[in-house]
Amino acid sequence: MSRTVVVLNGPNLNLLGLREPEIYGRVSLEDIKAATRARAKTHGLEADFRQSNDEGELVTAIQGARTSAAGIIINAAAYTHTSVAILDALLASDLPVIEVHLSNIYKREEFRHHSYVSRAATGVICGFGAHGYELAVDAMANILVSRKTK
Amino acid sequence: MSRTVVVLNGPNLNLLGLREPEIYGRVSLEDIKAATRARAKTHGLEADFRQSNDEGELVTAIQGARTSAAGIIINAAAYTHTSVAILDALLASDLPVIEVHLSNIYKREEFRHHSYVSRAATGVICGFGAHGYELAVDAMANILVSRKTK
Amino acid sequence: MSRTVVVLNGPNLNLLGLREPEIYGRVSLEDIKAATRARAKTHGLEADFRQSNDEGELVTAIQGARTSAAGIIINAAAYTHTSVAILDALLASDLPVIEVHLSNIYKREEFRHHSYVSRAATGVICGFGAHGYELAVDAMANILVSRKTK
Amino acid sequence: MSRTVVVLNGPNLNLLGLREPEIYGRVSLEDIKAATRARAKTHGLEADFRQSNDEGELVTAIQGARTSAAGIIINAAAYTHTSVAILDALLASDLPVIEVHLSNIYKREEFRHHSYVSRAATGVICGFGAHGYELAVDAMANILVSRKTK
Amino acid sequence: MSRTVVVLNGPNLNLLGLREPEIYGRVSLEDIKAATRARAKTHGLEADFRQSNDEGELVTAIQGARTSAAGIIINAAAYTHTSVAILDALLASDLPVIEVHLSNIYKREEFRHHSYVSRAATGVICGFGAHGYELAVDAMANILVSRKTK
Amino acid sequence: MSRTVVVLNGPNLNLLGLREPEIYGRVSLEDIKAATRARAKTHGLEADFRQSNDEGELVTAIQGARTSAAGIIINAAAYTHTSVAILDALLASDLPVIEVHLSNIYKREEFRHHSYVSRAATGVICGFGAHGYELAVDAMANILVSRKTK
Amino acid sequence: MSRTVVVLNGPNLNLLGLREPEIYGRVSLEDIKAATRARAKTHGLEADFRQSNDEGELVTAIQGARTSAAGIIINAAAYTHTSVAILDALLASDLPVIEVHLSNIYKREEFRHHSYVSRAATGVICGFGAHGYELAVDAMANILVSRKTK
Amino acid sequence: MSRTVVVLNGPNLNLLGLREPEIYGRVSLEDIKAATRARAKTHGLEADFRQSNDEGELVTAIQGARTSAAGIIINAAAYTHTSVAILDALLASDLPVIEVHLSNIYKREEFRHHSYVSRAATGVICGFGAHGYELAVDAMANILVSRKTK
Amino acid sequence: MSRTVVVLNGPNLNLLGLREPEIYGRVSLEDIKAATRARAKTHGLEADFRQSNDEGELVTAIQGARTSAAGIIINAAAYTHTSVAILDALLASDLPVIEVHLSNIYKREEFRHHSYVSRAATGVICGFGAHGYELAVDAMANILVSRKTK
Amino acid sequence: MSRTVVVLNGPNLNLLGLREPEIYGRVSLEDIKAATRARAKTHGLEADFRQSNDEGELVTAIQGARTSAAGIIINAAAYTHTSVAILDALLASDLPVIEVHLSNIYKREEFRHHSYVSRAATGVICGFGAHGYELAVDAMANILVSRKTK
Amino acid sequence: MSRTVVVLNGPNLNLLGLREPEIYGRVSLEDIKAATRARAKTHGLEADFRQSNDEGELVTAIQGARTSAAGIIINAAAYTHTSVAILDALLASDLPVIEVHLSNIYKREEFRHHSYVSRAATGVICGFGAHGYELAVDAMANILVSRKTK
Amino acid sequence: MSRTVVVLNGPNLNLLGLREPEIYGRVSLEDIKAATRARAKTHGLEADFRQSNDEGELVTAIQGARTSAAGIIINAAAYTHTSVAILDALLASDLPVIEVHLSNIYKREEFRHHSYVSRAATGVICGFGAHGYELAVDAMANILVSRKTK
Repeated sequence: MSRTVVVLNGPNLNLLGLREPEIYGRVSLEDIKAATRARAKTHGLEADFRQSNDEGELVTAIQGARTSAAGIIINAAAYTHTSVAILDALLASDLPVIEVHLSNIYKREEFRHHSYVSRAATGVICGFGAHGYELAVDAMANILVSRKTK
Repeated sequence: MSRTVVVLNGPNLNLLGLREPEIYGRVSLEDIKAATRARAKTHGLEADFRQSNDEGELVTAIQGARTSAAGIIINAAAYTHTSVAILDALLASDLPVIEVHLSNIYKREEFRHHSYVSRAATGVICGFGAHGYELAVDAMANILVSRKTK
Repeated sequence: MSRTVVVLNGPNLNLLGLREPEIYGRVSLEDIKAATRARAKTHGLEADFRQSNDEGELVTAIQGARTSAAGIIINAAAYTHTSVAILDALLASDLPVIEVHLSNIYKREEFRHHSYVSRAATGVICGFGAHGYELAVDAMANILVSRKTK
Repeated sequence: MSRTVVVLNGPNLNLLGLREPEIYGRVSLEDIKAATRARAKTHGLEADFRQSNDEGELVTAIQGARTSAAGIIINAAAYTHTSVAILDALLASDLPVIEVHLSNIYKREEFRHHSYVSRAATGVICGFGAHGYELAVDAMANILVSRKTK
Repeated sequence: MSRTVVVLNGPNLNLLGLREPEIYGRVSLEDIKAATRARAKTHGLEADFRQSNDEGELVTAIQGARTSAAGIIINAAAYTHTSVAILDALLASDLPVIEVHLSNIYKREEFRHHSYVSRAATGVICGFGAHGYELAVDAMANILVSRKTK
Repeated sequence: MSRTVVVLNGPNLNLLGLREPEIYGRVSLEDIKAATRARAKTHGLEADFRQSNDEGELVTAIQGARTSAAGIIINAAAYTHTSVAILDALLASDLPVIEVHLSNIYKREEFRHHSYVSRAATGVICGFGAHGYELAVDAMANILVSRKTK
Repeated sequence: MSRTVVVLNGPNLNLLGLREPEIYGRVSLEDIKAATRARAKTHGLEADFRQSNDEGELVTAIQGARTSAAGIIINAAAYTHTSVAILDALLASDLPVIEVHLSNIYKREEFRHHSYVSRAATGVICGFGAHGYELAVDAMANILVSRKTK
Repeated sequence: MSRTVVVLNGPNLNLLGLREPEIYGRVSLEDIKAATRARAKTHGLEADFRQSNDEGELVTAIQGARTSAAGIIINAAAYTHTSVAILDALLASDLPVIEVHLSNIYKREEFRHHSYVSRAATGVICGFGAHGYELAVDAMANILVSRKTK
Repeated sequence: MSRTVVVLNGPNLNLLGLREPEIYGRVSLEDIKAATRARAKTHGLEADFRQSNDEGELVTAIQGARTSAAGIIINAAAYTHTSVAILDALLASDLPVIEVHLSNIYKREEFRHHSYVSRAATGVICGFGAHGYELAVDAMANILVSRKTK
Repeated sequence: MSRTVVVLNGPNLNLLGLREPEIYGRVSLEDIKAATRARAKTHGLEADFRQSNDEGELVTAIQGARTSAAGIIINAAAYTHTSVAILDALLASDLPVIEVHLSNIYKREEFRHHSYVSRAATGVICGFGAHGYELAVDAMANILVSRKTK
Repeated sequence: MSRTVVVLNGPNLNLLGLREPEIYGRVSLEDIKAATRARAKTHGLEADFRQSNDEGELVTAIQGARTSAAGIIINAAAYTHTSVAILDALLASDLPVIEVHLSNIYKREEFRHHSYVSRAATGVICGFGAHGYELAVDAMANILVSRKTK
Repeated sequence: MSRTVVVLNGPNLNLLGLREPEIYGRVSLEDIKAATRARAKTHGLEADFRQSNDEGELVTAIQGARTSAAGIIINAAAYTHTSVAILDALLASDLPVIEVHLSNIYKREEFRHHSYVSRAATGVICGFGAHGYELAVDAMANILVSRKTK
């Protein structure tokens, strides 16, 4: 079985740390990438970390994960709320999927309360900032272990 | 008048036959392409068959059809339910449009009951699996004949 | 296995061709009946073609088809949107059901977007005028063939 | 600063492991309690683990945490969706709050998609079964550390 | 198999016969208890009849029935419309559940039309006043007989 | 006072026992009729048991009951959810009305949760299969007795 | 041009004057028929007055009016709120249509506020009891005169 | 008893006949006033005919009618849909109220389907253009006669 | 600081005591004015008491209070539910605002449950009849005192 | 007649003055109790002042008031918005009920705008902080006086 | 053709610059009037600038513009969201209409997102403060030029 | 400070002038580009004018503007109504944003009334065709000037 976990990041997440640091903190996506990969290593996993502003590109990346990865961690950002295409790709992937959000989306504007991604996700982790990615890696490692042992 | 019918396929349809064959059958998009082109030939039409995971690419393909094709057959998959951009491109094309779906979307989740594509479509064919594409070609041929004879 | 396909037509379809020919065309229900039966013949099927303005009569006709027919093609017209009784009869029939509409109901008034019939239908064909009945016969023939070969 | 984290469990969670083990697994609330406390220890925290079927009792427990604990982890179970009283108690506690659910509530019945608790929660973790409690403890430890260092 | 049927009564039902006798009649909850127990006897069943104003207490009572009773008859009164906790307890009980209401709740205020209890109930009996409890006992006896004979 | 209770059955109930016996059981409407009539006899009542697929016919039957019967037991099946005409006839009948359903309609599709019949019914009994008719006869007998004694 | 006005009455209107005279008055449908016909005579019109409990029968009656009558006055009673079939028949009739109701439906239950008939009606008269039919005849006469003079 | 009927006209009705004569006809409000007064005369009534663009002025006019008039005929135009103040004034007047509209408001934009005036009106007449006022006078005369004879 | 409290009364309140005394009591607006002014005196305040049926006039009165008064007590009657203009004027006034209603509007028709005025009000008093004005004066006096002492 | 007024306080109100004094002020529930009791004394009434976090306990307290008190003043806090059980207990108490809230709930989150308590309340006082309790006592005294004098 | 553009301002706009200058700026309506007139002059147009708090007065002003002006610029303020009467007057005016708002209403409270005025407006300009009036004058001048040149 | 204003155009705007010239006019996007750049020059600004059919590309373009431009003018066309990703990019840009539409979107289909872009826009200009871009440039120039002078 593959030891790779694809970690996908949706639109505008490339701006992390650059914009409004007083709100989003000074942690950049590069920092999160490093922490995520390090965390994955502790579980003997490899984190394939990517970002795209493009819905179609994210769909294609999920399709790629289908045959090459053991699981998907996804922060679909704005596409969380609008993309049935990402939902369908996740459903087709037949992989464990963990949904991550930096902020607690259920405390934000009404239109951010609904997530298409949740319909395909094993679990959801949100509101813990950059640390949420590490929790997601831990959760994924745990899921992969229990699957193997079945 | 052009004898070409553009047949557009939206996100994730490239996975047909590969994923969950027990549900979606073993027919691949390549198989559907072959059957569609063969069917078109029997009506003296040429089927220009494409797939894209990208909303913008599909919009651009529809714009291209405007000046080069006689009609559009479209299975917009997930974008059916979310893309006003594809709707607007179809409306601007001023061509006969036939909407196809492999499954009967009206029996699926609530959010799949609504179709922006339907607002621009002459007709809708759904629930007949791969055979639906052949029915769509027949329907398009019939529409093109009646237009010519007017 | 029965070679009969029951083709049911709901309220006001008996007026086809008589009223507003500039909108609905000059094709009468008799013309559609003839074309449907001819098309069925080419597949070795017999089309039992009926019309009724009465919901109860249509329910009873569907019940009759249960034991004597191989499939049901139904244009329930206005009852499409309001009849749970027809839906229940179709569900009980345990036959392949194809829903047909002359016009694209998804482009008409809001209350015509919802169909109870769709919940029981294998597939839906709408917007192709009288030609839709022939497409429905082709689709039914194809369904019956694949069922037999299973 | 207190080193205690109150871990509150709502109605029916006392039945875990006893009922429908084929669905919910054989892990009992006692097992979760042990795992949670052990996990807390690794962070130098103490988990005060409780369960109640009673809304008022949970409110009072949260009020108690206000003055004696460093944070609250809560799986309010059914009260998640109906209790404004628990929400108000959490808001008044002025403590970091982590919401946990064993299952992914966003994939269940519509009425389970809405959470009053989320309005008061720093973050949400759901869908990871018993492991979710350990993730919550890790997340809480991380929050408490960053607060202290500020 | 247990011969006990737990009969649960929700908030304010202890006031029956005391308040507004011109509306609710002069039958008290004690009277209903006697009639219910007598009726149960005729089927060789024992009715364990209780009332509580407290949601948590009712949840705990349902949990108790899980291991000691053959079935549950419940008039959850006001909690019918608001308690997901009672619903979850009933679902977990894995017992036949009969929902009873003295009045026809579907003829009262809009907010009384929705019942969480119904989602877990085998059947519903409402509008027959005190006699509804006897009908519920008869229905329960019939269900228990058919279960045994399977 | 008349000793006749009219028992009305709506569309598709004539198929009971014939279709999907694994779901609806092997009890036919004839069996229910016999059981209902026998039960009525034990109360000195006569059950006038009828079925129709036709909304208008059911309305007329209810009007007939107005002057000749002591009460109405009605399982309006699909018309439960759509027929204001049956509601109006029941309201005009000025008789005690008991609504029966074989299944618990509140656990089925959303559109089956609403009942026009309930607005005119003294009481509702649903979810007890064929036994529900016997319970309805008992309930009706009890209502008629209390009316007489007033 | 035909001098006949078809006056159609929907379900339960045959009970007028018989039921609840303290509410609906002692005027029977026969009385209204006589008054309507007399009023029509004063305008040189003939009122073809009918009642049916059956939706299909009313549809067929409207279809008949298409070729034989000058206008339609319709009190569709309960079908006002539920029948798309009657709406479609009225739209197809291409005749002036006047909708009448004995009571002011906009003061009654919410579900009686919506009328499908209104979508096909030239005008609506409601709330004037039996006198409303005479006003409708006057209005129809006025419409027919202005049409002729155009 | 007063023989005066106050006929109130809401905002923009003063423009009748002046604007868009191809749509609204060439009948001015002055013409309607004359016809209404003439019609009232035939019933021995006097029509006090007024128009105002001001909601408060209309409220005051209705208050004035309370003590001086026998009934109110009102075409509240745009205020029909928005004015609770006019509704309250009509309710307080304790007079028979007839609501008139030139066009069939139920065929126009969604927001014109709702009328606050209807909640206070004995009856509604709409869609008959200027003739509707005469029908309203006839209806009012009939109401006043039946009141007197009671 | 001004010692004047403007007390504004909306449409139809001038009819108090005149209409339906059995419902609204025999207390007239004049009586309320006297009691309100007397009550104000006890606090050393002057009540400037006014009524208008006109929305614009009320807006202007509120604007006037901005510069001359210490607070506003308003019973906007029907405009409570419809007037954004009054809301905006109140918001602009920057004065303490107390909303009063004679009846408990939350027990009346659905459309009276929503109040625009509440968005600008410090507090709301409703359901206490004429006495509510005195309570409002007491509440205003208390607010003005605490403001001064800050 | 009893001279006792029961003053009930719902969940979390015991925290008043302790939490967030900058928002809720430094007034504790003990302070309010004292002021309320003093105020009651001035009217010759005794205030029986209680608080509970438990819905069932509040229901039972209301039931107790039924036979021992002259009226109920209730600030149900969070249960205001969710408790049908409290509503039913208040309705059954047949006592004058005054609803109090410290803040103006109509200016807070949407879900706090709806109150079940209002359906049973004579009047509502909200937004005046601790002073609201004194106003409620005054209002209750006035209601009791007018009842006695009837 | 008239060279006058009527510029209408709704309720509370007379307070501009006087209230909350830190929010709305120190620009008064007089300042805007001067700037608007000056701008109009540069296009050879005359700006007839008015303000009213009264809905009826604004309706009448729009009616006056019908025959005397070339176009209407309107900031209906609060009436934007509630006045069908102003909408109808604008529709009847048959003039180009430009809707202006100082703030971006689509970023404010939900109830300010809907505009009746927009249904009659050629175009909308909002969010640019006082400068929006000058942009509206430019836009109007451009519209008038293109109309003339057609 | 940058003197560049990025002017972004969404899907299908490249077809302007080519399709349906009788509706959209003969002005092409090239024409608008020229006029916009010319207008910008008069303010000493440079318009960086772009079009894309691709949501992701537009997001990336907005991100680019963040660091290189002084403001953004955007006609997001179809993505206006569906793209949270574009909204998030605009919010992150921290630049003045002006939303432009050729037509008045509030007069078109319901689903075009809602704009995600408006939530990030300083102001909105719609309905003025190509001229709207020039107005937007003027508005932007004015905003940039006032910012500089602060």
